[in-house]
Amino acid sequence: MAVKIIKSKNFVETDFVESLAEVPVEEYKPWPENDKLKIVGKPVSRIDAYEKVSGTASYTTDKFLPNMVYGKILRSPHPNAILKNLNTEKAEKLEGVLKILSFKNCPEISWYYDTSLLFDKNLRYQGDEVACVAAISERIALEALKLIEVEYETLPFVTTASEAMMSESPKVHGWGNILDGKPDTYVRGDVEKGFNEADQIIEEEFNTQVVVHNPTEVHCSLANWDDDKLTIWDSTQAIFSVRDTVAASLKIPSSKVRVIKKFMGGGFGSKLEAGKHTIMAALISRDIGKPVFISVDRKEMNLAVGNRPDSNQKLKIGVKKDGTITALSHISYGSVGAYPDSAGCSWPLKTIYLCPNVKTEEYSVLTNSGRSRAMRAPGHVQGTFALEAIIDDAAEKIGMDPLEFRLKNYAETDQVFNVPYTSKKLKDAYLKGAEIIRWKRRNKTPGSQNSEVKNGIGMATQIWWGGGGPPAYAALKLNRDSSINVFAGSQDLGTGTYTFIAQVAAEVLEIPVEKIKVDIGDTDFPYCPLSGGSMTAPSVAPAIRDAAEQMKGKLISAAAAILNLPEEELMYSQGLVSSIKEKDKKISITEIVSKTRNRELITNGAREKNPDGYATNSFGVQFADVSVDTLTGKVKVNKIAAAYDIGRTLNPKTLYNQIHGGIIQGLGYALFEERLLDRKTGKVLTTNLHSYKIPTIKDAPEIEIAIVSQFDPLNSSIGVKGVGEPAIIPTAAAIGNAVYNAIGKRIRSLPITPDKIIKALYS
Amino acid sequence: MAVKIIKSKNFVETDFVESLAEVPVEEYKPWPENDKLKIVGKPVSRIDAYEKVSGTASYTTDKFLPNMVYGKILRSPHPNAILKNLNTEKAEKLEGVLKILSFKNCPEISWYYDTSLLFDKNLRYQGDEVACVAAISERIALEALKLIEVEYETLPFVTTASEAMMSESPKVHGWGNILDGKPDTYVRGDVEKGFNEADQIIEEEFNTQVVVHNPTEVHCSLANWDDDKLTIWDSTQAIFSVRDTVAASLKIPSSKVRVIKKFMGGGFGSKLEAGKHTIMAALISRDIGKPVFISVDRKEMNLAVGNRPDSNQKLKIGVKKDGTITALSHISYGSVGAYPDSAGCSWPLKTIYLCPNVKTEEYSVLTNSGRSRAMRAPGHVQGTFALEAIIDDAAEKIGMDPLEFRLKNYAETDQVFNVPYTSKKLKDAYLKGAEIIRWKRRNKTPGSQNSEVKNGIGMATQIWWGGGGPPAYAALKLNRDSSINVFAGSQDLGTGTYTFIAQVAAEVLEIPVEKIKVDIGDTDFPYCPLSGGSMTAPSVAPAIRDAAEQMKGKLISAAAAILNLPEEELMYSQGLVSSIKEKDKKISITEIVSKTRNRELITNGAREKNPDGYATNSFGVQFADVSVDTLTGKVKVNKIAAAYDIGRTLNPKTLYNQIHGGIIQGLGYALFEERLLDRKTGKVLTTNLHSYKIPTIKDAPEIEIAIVSQFDPLNSSIGVKGVGEPAIIPTAAAIGNAVYNAIGKRIRSLPITPDKIIKALYS
Repeated sequence: MAVKIIKSKNFVETDFVESLAEVPVEEYKPWPENDKLKIVGKPVSRIDAYEKVSGTASYTTDKFLPNMVYGKILRSPHPNAILKNLNTEKAEKLEGVLKILSFKNCPEISWYYDTSLLFDKNLRYQGDEVACVAAISERIALEALKLIEVEYETLPFVTTASEAMMSESPKVHGWGNILDGKPDTYVRGDVEKGFNEADQIIEEEFNTQVVVHNPTEVHCSLANWDDDKLTIWDSTQAIFSVRDTVAASLKIPSSKVRVIKKFMGGGFGSKLEAGKHTIMAALISRDIGKPVFISVDRKEMNLAVGNRPDSNQKLKIGVKKDGTITALSHISYGSVGAYPDSAGCSWPLKTIYLCPNVKTEEYSVLTNSGRSRAMRAPGHVQGTFALEAIIDDAAEKIGMDPLEFRLKNYAETDQVFNVPYTSKKLKDAYLKGAEIIRWKRRNKTPGSQNSEVKNGIGMATQIWWGGGGPPAYAALKLNRDSSINVFAGSQDLGTGTYTFIAQVAAEVLEIPVEKIKVDIGDTDFPYCPLSGGSMTAPSVAPAIRDAAEQMKGKLISAAAAILNLPEEELMYSQGLVSSIKEKDKKISITEIVSKTRNRELITNGAREKNPDGYATNSFGVQFADVSVDTLTGKVKVNKIAAAYDIGRTLNPKTLYNQIHGGIIQGLGYALFEERLLDRKTGKVLTTNLHSYKIPTIKDAPEIEIAIVSQFDPLNSSIGVKGVGEPAIIPTAAAIGNAVYNAIGKRIRSLPITPDKIIKALYS
Repeated sequence: MAVKIIKSKNFVETDFVESLAEVPVEEYKPWPENDKLKIVGKPVSRIDAYEKVSGTASYTTDKFLPNMVYGKILRSPHPNAILKNLNTEKAEKLEGVLKILSFKNCPEISWYYDTSLLFDKNLRYQGDEVACVAAISERIALEALKLIEVEYETLPFVTTASEAMMSESPKVHGWGNILDGKPDTYVRGDVEKGFNEADQIIEEEFNTQVVVHNPTEVHCSLANWDDDKLTIWDSTQAIFSVRDTVAASLKIPSSKVRVIKKFMGGGFGSKLEAGKHTIMAALISRDIGKPVFISVDRKEMNLAVGNRPDSNQKLKIGVKKDGTITALSHISYGSVGAYPDSAGCSWPLKTIYLCPNVKTEEYSVLTNSGRSRAMRAPGHVQGTFALEAIIDDAAEKIGMDPLEFRLKNYAETDQVFNVPYTSKKLKDAYLKGAEIIRWKRRNKTPGSQNSEVKNGIGMATQIWWGGGGPPAYAALKLNRDSSINVFAGSQDLGTGTYTFIAQVAAEVLEIPVEKIKVDIGDTDFPYCPLSGGSMTAPSVAPAIRDAAEQMKGKLISAAAAILNLPEEELMYSQGLVSSIKEKDKKISITEIVSKTRNRELITNGAREKNPDGYATNSFGVQFADVSVDTLTGKVKVNKIAAAYDIGRTLNPKTLYNQIHGGIIQGLGYALFEERLLDRKTGKVLTTNLHSYKIPTIKDAPEIEIAIVSQFDPLNSSIGVKGVGEPAIIPTAAAIGNAVYNAIGKRIRSLPITPDKIIKALYS
């Protein structure tokens, strides 16, 4: 049954309108290599380091307003139920309870779908929102939740994609469980023909688990009204999306909503949109006239704010004896939980290797479980794990070295859009990574070591979009004392946005980083895209450069008037405007600003779009060195060598930080993390960080990083490409291939736990 | 002894640099009369009315930060003393005391003079700052003040200008007490010759008292540091001056200091600069790592934050029989307290009446008392009281009606700068005011009524600068949903800045005021001048118009690209861009913004300076109708008719509010307000609002207002002139003249208290 699914209009997401660009953006000559720059590319310490280490950095949870009250959410304990009745009388009588919001008294606000509501009587997963209590303390709000009497009518449910696709299975929304009623399909060339041309055909099936974002800082929102003006402090990766979703949901203008986020304890995709708790805080706050703070706890984080969908992938590859890939086909199924999202994971397969014949079918399937959300490199992590395993297996089948096989099938251009890349230095990355890991020492015959603990080396490739997103803007303000403020509505998830902004402005104006104050994370500032998709630096850095270059222009104009010289005869350097001809004719920024009537100079910079006719991608490779204990089945990752083409390095310190973080998160995905859902009860078994194991410092391998790129000359005035997601993509795949190289057995399902190793070795 | 007095460089004040204007400002055709406009000039209710009446408006005192502590200041009880020693041991031991700042541990920060310090061992007036205690509560801080042991060496002191000018008197700063060692002198023509040509010469002496600003909201500052970044919430009329003074005092860049002021309970000049308490809060906060809030109490308000200086004025006027004024001379003395400020009050006399021969000498004299500060129309209020009395007396002397005498000596151009006025409709104001008050019913012979309660009518003229101040800037942001944010670093003292900004933007864009959110009072926003000198509306409104007009231009450009029509064929009206030729070709703002890649459009508006070659002044007249009880000496003001030329009325509601406030404050100045300083002890006797009487609603007269101007066509794109100060200037003078008209006796010293009336009538 194909039912047209209409997403709720309240849900404002990032759309890319390609029609026209109104902002005329200056073209600047790309900077040269970093060794010719003074500040960009240098290991500048984070400008927010003091706040971070001293504990004075103000996270959303640290925000305190007088009279603020605390909200807690009652969630459905059932995977599928109808809310028959709700009695809040006893809870309301508890001293300190100020408001209980539920379907009974909440305005009808559509959410996710046009047919589903903020408070929906159909509860479609364990964790679905039933009611929200606001009280003078969190403790009282939690007490009140227990006093709410709820009558549920429980319904049959489905927890896995395979189950959900059966015709007789319960339907999560009444209509068919396959999103859009059909798979998302891609065809290039003729796969039948391709497979017929192959000397070898390999078919394999892979499974990956559901994992949960689990950033250190939980999701939380503080809402406060001044008359008709709403301010929200939110732990979010997308202040403007939150603003616009809140405004649309409450039917008020965006100008009356301000969203602020100064510091953040991580965001991996689940914080890309307004949460239901955000709207609830805003609604209750308006109603009771007090600031309302709602934070979800770790259990709710593991139930209800998002996850990386699982996957079941059927891959088929055709190769000739000489290593040419003739065809690739991929069918994937992923459970997206109770509300729409894509579980597609075919992209790496469409693009990484040269292949004329490709067919992919991506099924996103609704189930009665927490909704999946974009999580660090959505789809790519799952898809790369499977693709890079079958690539290794194919190479082995034809007796070719896996690295040689990859180089043989190297794609020089983008095969989906049939355009060249702005730059691609993956080959250099392959060679550099192989050198670091000492590739030649790998087991020629997998599993051939005779020791109890067997070592192995494996590799995996990564591709990701490396360009900027929607237009980004920034304002630069030169104060009378020549100090500088930069304003941009971007977000720092902990990745170093504050710092690279200061570096870019300082580089252009040739002044110390310390002279620049960076303000971000506020919708009062000029629009910047959400911080996700690895697009922050590529989007924001060029806007900062534009604003700073314009400032140089303004300073030259002003100096020309003061010195009575034509602008063409003047140049700017290190805080001084001087005559090109007569060296002694010069004037400092401070003098310029004090000799004009202007109290300050303001410029507005913009970065508009990626270059037409090109694909902009980040490329990289990771090599893993692992030890597998064949008695316990335990895998130890000894070292990861990561070699990347990410265009220009803005700051090696923060860049390496991001790569480290990605690798460690990828290691967790490869070896331990898994949301376990009990199929009998439909309930999540791993609702805390004890049962849901994420890596700690003890699990961290040695990490060696090489950046093989200088800068991407075609991608904006900066030439930087994104690295946030590229860092995690190949880790699990490289570890998987290394484990195979160690033990000679292929583990085709993640995580690679000891029991699976033991089973593979001994059964 | 003439000593060069150097003001502290830390003290950043408003300077007007005339050299060049870097910002190219668009010239717009002036708007027509208000009746052809839709929003400007209409009685729009304050957009911040809800916050004000509901109590949710966040004043500086309402700001609460976690862990904030409270500062209290120990002040010298002596008018002149040397701080010999300070023992804070006992105070420091009091539980809850966190820090005591004094000359012993405070960095040397020059303040007022280069030779005086933030904590100076020379205490030059009762209220001079000795130490500052920060504690976990105000109560504890106050207790601690009592425990500080201070050893003072008391010194002889001077409390009045006349005393201070004697050669043997104590010197406040060691050098001569006359500021700059000489009077500020102005000469036009030849006064000797002028007096020789006169038929009548009148010489009179006037005295006015010291009054105190006493706004409803006391001075207060809350300081908080994030690493090297300081945020100050301050009750200030000048966020940028506070920012720059704090930055200079602490030797940090202005970009690292942010000053915020959202709402304010009045400001009459004493809040034009950073207070010592502001710096103390910042210093202690940096030291103890907690937010520090310091507010001064009402006693401190009456001792230490400023006052209007007193005056002793010797006036001389020469007139011919036909009413021509041949010469005017004016010598004034005013005590500025212990630190530099001007007590000059000659300006009205130099400009209001046509007179070729003028000489003025203004002495500003240092005394051991609280420092004088600009207070609503500094100098003009004092000078106008004396000038308008002697004008009346001169008219009487030659047997001419005072109004006729004023019209006879009407100055069509500015006599100081010898330039025309951008507009002057004072004549219309005279006639309109006379009509309202029914001028003809005044006593032809002053004091001629036979009743116990005698009625009288008097009038007085006012001149004030009406143009804008330093350049002002504003940013306008059109969001994706077509709502609008306006950002400008201006201040609303309670005068209606929020509202007129919304009106101007709404007028240009032809959209409802409700669609616009106005954000001001934040140094993160584009620079605007301090809110003082009646310059807010003339400075800021044109910048808002510029930003909004530019937005129309941007919308037309974008629409041209979407509709594929030349820009010249398009027009903007009421949220729509449409083709001039083909009516059905049109597109709404919302569509434009959604069909471009831009997430928002931002424009930056500017207002640069007043027109060259003109003087821009506000003009007005007030007529007072009073009753004087000849048994009690009590004066009752029955009615004030106020007729003004202030260019364009932006909003009659807020305009009338300001005029009402000025008149009532002027009435207090005329009849009750007086800071009493005991000459024997050098101590202030009136340190609270019981002993220092300000008018209440019971004292308020009937007020009738007429605005005789439509708009000032030469003064900016808006044509508005300032009104804040003009409202108070003539009130005391008009009341004084009305009292004379009632009783036939001239009271030449303010305030006109019952004892002075009785003395004049019966001695």
